[in-house]
Amino acid sequence: MPYVNIKITREGASSEQKAELIAGVTRLLQDVLSKNPATTVVVIDEVDTDNWGIGGESVSVRRARGS
Amino acid sequence: MPYVNIKITREGASSEQKAELIAGVTRLLQDVLSKNPATTVVVIDEVDTDNWGIGGESVSVRRARGS
Amino acid sequence: MPYVNIKITREGASSEQKAELIAGVTRLLQDVLSKNPATTVVVIDEVDTDNWGIGGESVSVRRARGS
Amino acid sequence: MPYVNIKITREGASSEQKAELIAGVTRLLQDVLSKNPATTVVVIDEVDTDNWGIGGESVSVRRARGS
Amino acid sequence: MPYVNIKITREGASSEQKAELIAGVTRLLQDVLSKNPATTVVVIDEVDTDNWGIGGESVSVRRARGS
Amino acid sequence: MPYVNIKITREGASSEQKAELIAGVTRLLQDVLSKNPATTVVVIDEVDTDNWGIGGESVSVRRARGS
Repeated sequence: MPYVNIKITREGASSEQKAELIAGVTRLLQDVLSKNPATTVVVIDEVDTDNWGIGGESVSVRRARGS
Repeated sequence: MPYVNIKITREGASSEQKAELIAGVTRLLQDVLSKNPATTVVVIDEVDTDNWGIGGESVSVRRARGS
Repeated sequence: MPYVNIKITREGASSEQKAELIAGVTRLLQDVLSKNPATTVVVIDEVDTDNWGIGGESVSVRRARGS
Repeated sequence: MPYVNIKITREGASSEQKAELIAGVTRLLQDVLSKNPATTVVVIDEVDTDNWGIGGESVSVRRARGS
Repeated sequence: MPYVNIKITREGASSEQKAELIAGVTRLLQDVLSKNPATTVVVIDEVDTDNWGIGGESVSVRRARGS
Repeated sequence: MPYVNIKITREGASSEQKAELIAGVTRLLQDVLSKNPATTVVVIDEVDTDNWGIGGESVSVRRARGS
């Protein structure tokens, strides 16, 4: 019954990669806490680099500067 | 003053249906907990079926398989 | 398969009231969008009044002032 | 190490304005709680006005009515 | 730079189990999307069974009924 | 009408400090985007250090090791 929300920057993750994240985190919750995979919900949010900040700057600005 | 976040898969919910969700959940909080509707905030997130997982699989994969 | 998160201030909502919220919002999603109640997840967060702000003030301060 | 999520309606906030939000909230957490800006994460979600409700109505409906 | 939020019912997960979830999901994001573990943030929320609903009922009620 | 969620580790932030965060972020949204402070909602979550991970480890473990 767990609910997992994964937020990443929108930078071209493929359907296959997102499927791997869903499968992997569902398996992890089953392995560690015996959670039933049938009711484990995973939601992936892809966030524009303008809308993601770290270190007081957007990721867009950091990427443009090369860091 | 409540805050409600509703996450659904992006599959064509209309503006009218989303308005019904907003009205309905605001009324529910007023009926059950006497919350003031004027300051009840509702945010609906529509999530691509590639980005929603249940049972260890994305909804896209489940739909394609017919389950 | 929807996921709903309801945030309210922690002010003594009873188990019965929380059960009503869970039942009500699950029914709403079934009525409006034909969502399967079996996989609708609802999580209620009760937040201390010191930790909830509106109008630039915490709810604790507003309550103490009588507004 | 804080994580901040800012949700606003999608109404044309510019990259510069979003950069100001990121910088400002990171500085606030440093000033008030001495949080390290290097690991402060800020995520801004812009939400369609159809998907944001207040007072039991969507923002789209309120704007159309002129309130 | 990913942010992951894991919500589970509060039913006695140990510090060791929570550490395994943190390590596992951080590794998964590195393996699948080459995300830097140093800036991957994981937040685990443990939710009272009265406050978690599925199938229109709280987990407390379901557990009491034996399902 | 913005909604802001601030997550920090639970390490003794005072009511005054939390009030400063609420006031500061509400003012920031007014200054940058002309958002009405009366309907800006801020929710602060304080998270146990066992439940917060960065770099693949919980903050509890990092603190114990002195990093």
